[in-house]
Amino acid sequence: MEFHDLTRKLQRENDTKIVMLVSDGIGGLPLEPGGETELETANTPNLDALATRGTLGLSTPVLPGITPGSGPGHLGLFGYDPLQYNIGRGVLEALGVDFELGANDVAIRGNFCSLDEQGNISDRRAGRIASEIGMKLCDKLATIKIPGVEVFVRHVKEYRLVIVFRAEGLGGNLHDTDPQRTGVPPLSPAALDEQSEATVKVAENFLAQARELLKDDFPANFLTLRGVAKLPHIPSYKEVYGLKAGAVAVYPMYRGLARLVNMDVLDAGQTLDAQCSCLEANWNDYDFFFVHFKYTDSTGEDGNFEAKVKRIEELDAAIPRIMNLNPDVIIVTGDHSTPCKMKSHSWHPVPTLIASNVCRTDACTGFGEADCLQGGLGQFPAKYLMSLAMAHAGRYEKYGA
Amino acid sequence: MEFHDLTRKLQRENDTKIVMLVSDGIGGLPLEPGGETELETANTPNLDALATRGTLGLSTPVLPGITPGSGPGHLGLFGYDPLQYNIGRGVLEALGVDFELGANDVAIRGNFCSLDEQGNISDRRAGRIASEIGMKLCDKLATIKIPGVEVFVRHVKEYRLVIVFRAEGLGGNLHDTDPQRTGVPPLSPAALDEQSEATVKVAENFLAQARELLKDDFPANFLTLRGVAKLPHIPSYKEVYGLKAGAVAVYPMYRGLARLVNMDVLDAGQTLDAQCSCLEANWNDYDFFFVHFKYTDSTGEDGNFEAKVKRIEELDAAIPRIMNLNPDVIIVTGDHSTPCKMKSHSWHPVPTLIASNVCRTDACTGFGEADCLQGGLGQFPAKYLMSLAMAHAGRYEKYGA
Repeated sequence: MEFHDLTRKLQRENDTKIVMLVSDGIGGLPLEPGGETELETANTPNLDALATRGTLGLSTPVLPGITPGSGPGHLGLFGYDPLQYNIGRGVLEALGVDFELGANDVAIRGNFCSLDEQGNISDRRAGRIASEIGMKLCDKLATIKIPGVEVFVRHVKEYRLVIVFRAEGLGGNLHDTDPQRTGVPPLSPAALDEQSEATVKVAENFLAQARELLKDDFPANFLTLRGVAKLPHIPSYKEVYGLKAGAVAVYPMYRGLARLVNMDVLDAGQTLDAQCSCLEANWNDYDFFFVHFKYTDSTGEDGNFEAKVKRIEELDAAIPRIMNLNPDVIIVTGDHSTPCKMKSHSWHPVPTLIASNVCRTDACTGFGEADCLQGGLGQFPAKYLMSLAMAHAGRYEKYGA
Repeated sequence: MEFHDLTRKLQRENDTKIVMLVSDGIGGLPLEPGGETELETANTPNLDALATRGTLGLSTPVLPGITPGSGPGHLGLFGYDPLQYNIGRGVLEALGVDFELGANDVAIRGNFCSLDEQGNISDRRAGRIASEIGMKLCDKLATIKIPGVEVFVRHVKEYRLVIVFRAEGLGGNLHDTDPQRTGVPPLSPAALDEQSEATVKVAENFLAQARELLKDDFPANFLTLRGVAKLPHIPSYKEVYGLKAGAVAVYPMYRGLARLVNMDVLDAGQTLDAQCSCLEANWNDYDFFFVHFKYTDSTGEDGNFEAKVKRIEELDAAIPRIMNLNPDVIIVTGDHSTPCKMKSHSWHPVPTLIASNVCRTDACTGFGEADCLQGGLGQFPAKYLMSLAMAHAGRYEKYGA
């Protein structure tokens, strides 16, 4: 039986509330062997109290040794096998600028680039132009008209942009036009399947107009197209878990990921405090809340151990306000580890905590990597975390008689 | 996505070096409940130092409760699912005598047997004839000519031999001709698929000539054919991991297993010391080294606890010379357990150690089964060990954005 056929079959309604608090990149490493990680260093009385009354474990986002991006990391937490569902780069980039993709949309990541007089690429990132220039050039590109196709252009940052073609019958399977090196011309759009031939025509048309519009804008006198993709077909959260789910995320990409599985995106504001207010305001209207905290990842990427520790302490301070709402199940975890020592996402298993009144408590009295290694959940694939949430919420029937 | 499609996609080049030191059958059991295993009894200061700065775990070669042979055990360590890839007995036997099998080869394990006057088998092992007699009889069989087919005969030990038929279009799917009991005649060769009908003709021809050649050689006056097999189709190491890999193994079978996944077989000499010299001599030319140490298995099979302990200490003494080369990642593990108490391979999970400068260190300060049970790698399928090696070597891209 397919995993989600099982969840569809077993799910049952009740009036419990589940909160999944995702502290992005929370897992870490000690700076020196035998030292403490960021989470172990942080002073976290509230998380430690939850750890004491809950059960800990370490989740593996994809497979041992595999480092996930944010997309696969969150799909796993949401209970979807990240190797089964693939989110294309263009789609992720569109989610990141809060673009609401539909089923007929082809999303593309664009990079402004520099062409020399021979038409060869001399800089694949157009000299990393300032964001304000990139924004103006995107306004120019937004004037492009293609018959029968709605065209959307959104600036992302510096030389990066998102282009969306909206029309029925457009496939999303094209080669990148970025040749990945300089001294050669950009590649022509090429289809990887028959359905995408129509998209090639649209892309050619778009690029011809763009070449004309940008010709005097050196170093950003052209662009390459990358990560062409359509929305993946992901069964909705409501369908596979029977949960009315709301997303409380400050950053667009995480709202977008939640939208991919059909969560409602709530007005989260810009701070953890505002996110707590959002939870309170919507508490009665949802069964499940996905709360995303970004800064444990960004400080990890910066390699700033002290800052990450502080961010963890900031998260810890928000716990009492969440617990005031009396969630039946609370989960604290991350979508992957982001050790300051590595300044990047990593494959290391992710500290995970689940607390409810039917936990089999373990001996752990603090929330840290070493505690989690001794925890009652053991080491487990992240894609099963939602099932543990459902079980602890009494939302699954027995399987078989 | 298939596991190796993922590794093909994520692999990236760098100049790191990985050493996988396989101590065959290293896992063990205490002789008395509550006692120490062979590994725990051994004095291993160098392995303990690695354990302190690395991460430990227990690997499951195939599945819980499944005892692997050397073939599946090593395939797992090399990162191939041992249930997906099947190495036939004939192939393994050919590898064991250093026979370099090609794609057109059908490898067969032969057993000399005794036939009585009615042509029934009276002894399935020909009275366990001495190796020197077996060798002479193999020389006789090597004179057999079959039109259009190259025939190779290699003596293995006592009554055991290997036969290889080399010709295009020969299938490798035949029943054994050994009836597994005495008092009945050997079975006739029979095909299990259409492609193997041609092989049946070749085998019939071979057996008819053998019967004539051996008729006066009682108790070894005939032979049975077993484990007929062709090389399995295994994607190469280079392809699935992007690693240039060298095998440093004293025993032919392990060189052969390495050859199955297209590792280069290096001149390893006959001792651990010579193996270290081989590592040193080839250090700059390879990304990955598979180093095989046989004697922890053979002493386990002998049930000689003290001898196995001594062999583990011998291995430990070689660690400093390996670490002098500064491998970026070192793994110490086994292909299975071989507890002296059982005098055989077993299913018990295998002590495993990985050390690099991006390990999440655990509390373990010694290398033994009890330590490994508390280790940060947890209990994991052996087929993922290579992915952990790749990750710790920085040789994987992030999966998804």
